[in-house]
Amino acid sequence: MPVNLQAPISLPLVKGISLSAVEANIRYQGRNDLVLIKIARGGTTAGVFTLNKFCAAPVTLCRAHLNTNQSPRYLLINAGNANAGTGEKGLKTAKQSCSILAELAQVETEEVLPFSTGVIGEQLPLQPFAINLPKAMEQLKEDNWLLAAKGIMTTDTVAKGVSQQININGKTITITGIAKGSGMIEPNMATLLAYIGCDAKVEASLLQQILNEAVADSFNAITIDADTSTNDSLILIASAQADVEITSNNREIFQQAINAVCQQLAQAIVRDAEGATKFVTIDVESAPDKAYAREIAYTIARSPLVKTALFASDPNWGRLLMAIGRSQVDALEVNKISLWLGETQLLEAGEPLASYSEEQGQMEMDKEEITIRVALNKGNSHARIWTSDLSHEYVRINAEYRS
Amino acid sequence: MPVNLQAPISLPLVKGISLSAVEANIRYQGRNDLVLIKIARGGTTAGVFTLNKFCAAPVTLCRAHLNTNQSPRYLLINAGNANAGTGEKGLKTAKQSCSILAELAQVETEEVLPFSTGVIGEQLPLQPFAINLPKAMEQLKEDNWLLAAKGIMTTDTVAKGVSQQININGKTITITGIAKGSGMIEPNMATLLAYIGCDAKVEASLLQQILNEAVADSFNAITIDADTSTNDSLILIASAQADVEITSNNREIFQQAINAVCQQLAQAIVRDAEGATKFVTIDVESAPDKAYAREIAYTIARSPLVKTALFASDPNWGRLLMAIGRSQVDALEVNKISLWLGETQLLEAGEPLASYSEEQGQMEMDKEEITIRVALNKGNSHARIWTSDLSHEYVRINAEYRS
Repeated sequence: MPVNLQAPISLPLVKGISLSAVEANIRYQGRNDLVLIKIARGGTTAGVFTLNKFCAAPVTLCRAHLNTNQSPRYLLINAGNANAGTGEKGLKTAKQSCSILAELAQVETEEVLPFSTGVIGEQLPLQPFAINLPKAMEQLKEDNWLLAAKGIMTTDTVAKGVSQQININGKTITITGIAKGSGMIEPNMATLLAYIGCDAKVEASLLQQILNEAVADSFNAITIDADTSTNDSLILIASAQADVEITSNNREIFQQAINAVCQQLAQAIVRDAEGATKFVTIDVESAPDKAYAREIAYTIARSPLVKTALFASDPNWGRLLMAIGRSQVDALEVNKISLWLGETQLLEAGEPLASYSEEQGQMEMDKEEITIRVALNKGNSHARIWTSDLSHEYVRINAEYRS
Repeated sequence: MPVNLQAPISLPLVKGISLSAVEANIRYQGRNDLVLIKIARGGTTAGVFTLNKFCAAPVTLCRAHLNTNQSPRYLLINAGNANAGTGEKGLKTAKQSCSILAELAQVETEEVLPFSTGVIGEQLPLQPFAINLPKAMEQLKEDNWLLAAKGIMTTDTVAKGVSQQININGKTITITGIAKGSGMIEPNMATLLAYIGCDAKVEASLLQQILNEAVADSFNAITIDADTSTNDSLILIASAQADVEITSNNREIFQQAINAVCQQLAQAIVRDAEGATKFVTIDVESAPDKAYAREIAYTIARSPLVKTALFASDPNWGRLLMAIGRSQVDALEVNKISLWLGETQLLEAGEPLASYSEEQGQMEMDKEEITIRVALNKGNSHARIWTSDLSHEYVRINAEYRS
């Protein structure tokens, strides 16, 4: 059960971007698992990918294709098999899947970006691509974002998508994005498969800058289980159909909208975390620098003992001190630290507050949305990240995933 | 159920070290929870403690007392309450508990080292010490190691103790050690409460050197849940009763024995890890340096997805690649890496082995003791660490711990 998250009822289309999803039976039966996204000629694309060194074959190929200076025309996505840990053979399969599509669509192989998500360490079959891509080509249409959001799911329980419209110079720009992922989530660039499209015109290198900035405080500010996937990929497309060009002069409003869309998608992933019963915001304030604040926030967020206490709604704040104290930061001054659960203060300058009662703590922990706030009182930087709890259900899902 | 670990039937005494355990009802009812260890005059003591910056009051006090150059005469240990996150009041309580004992025993307060283990963030009551220490003093005897091992337990399911005898210059030296701990275990100096005694004579600074060396590949080579406790303390006592002095000249055989005792105690903690069903050895070989090898070994050992696959006996080796690939090391060359599960090779120079079958992997994963071996083929250093799996039972124990 995701925490305060429902699948969108519909997702606004973006001119110049069309999508389809078909049943290819790559691993799953009776549901769509092959998704195609087509970008109109003239669009630009920016991407960020996992930093996992055992990255999947499609990630390697995406990077290579983006480096050719061919502007991507198609994104080819399959769910159920990650094509990771598959060696040279896996890379060849990924290339061949691009070639099959390129031939059908009469584009260059390098104009196709491939993406895979699912089980690691199994060879991806090529047959389902050969058989089903013609149908996927036929069914491409602009009003298919929700269908695509469903088609890329693996252990996700709800489809994730958000949309936003902004006005620049009297023109409307539509931004729509979808994402999937609920386990193996601590993105180190982006999270497992997210696609955001907009109809503005944005020169490719500026689009990449905008994406990098948006990712820092969204996809790169979440963790479910500290495990960085081999397949994380986030693509931002500007289809250039809305007759507005984004430049460094009018960038700000566009940047804010992209930030918001990225943040909502990243939060949706945490809300649908495997086995999650809580959505947790961790704020670390008054730190010497942002990396310092992030290290403490992530140490709290990754701690299995903090996460099991969250699952139990147990105001066992000693575990928060433990996690703060074991963070790999220099010169932490525990006698300056203050700590809050929601609005309830637990610690002031390192000392437990006499006014704090277990009942207050219990009230905060009973909530589905919990904020943990740490003030270090040794600087002006802060960091905010989002995480989930660790439940029986997380263990069940991940002990049974392949069976 | 611990993995291939039984409580010792008896533990050999060490001349010059006497112990007792009494029921003080600090948190637990109907079991011993207050343990006293007395060291004969002339003995020396070395200690290592947690690097958690929110360290417990007794840890702060142990460090201070060891720095006074008073040779410790008593170790005072309670289970059920960690006296951590308790601020100035907690520190005062710890001091007062030492003073009560010091008065009874007619020693200086600084000759008492205090230790606490249990729930974090609750004030430790002083009354149980005042009431029960006289009885604990009366009951001190040398042949009480096993009783003490039971008295320091919290979520442990079996008492942990090992012993070894060595011969130096025709004289026998007895080394006996006990430990407790099964959750919040990734020691960063030592693990939650371990006490090792021997009857050799060892000058204090040499004893500390020997302990530091032994800890590196024992207590500092295990992780259960990546969470470093606020209370970790390991004490090595040399009672100087065996008429053998250890010096830098005859150190080696003694060092090896202390290493072995530390390693067996550290492994016992992992075998009794909360909810553990597997005992896992991780070897990372042919690394540029030891820190590099350790980072990869620990990343595998901490990964919730690797740990849930271990729990499920699922040869889902893609998760091993994921963990290796997300390790924070420079210049990892995935196309040089070979990987084994037990004797079964999975990967050769980054490529999946054609000869590998899922049945072989399953056979290895069905075992209770599993070895994961990674060869990086880029140097001559190696690291070995031990860990456990992540089970439903771990979540249950830690969601219910305070209730």
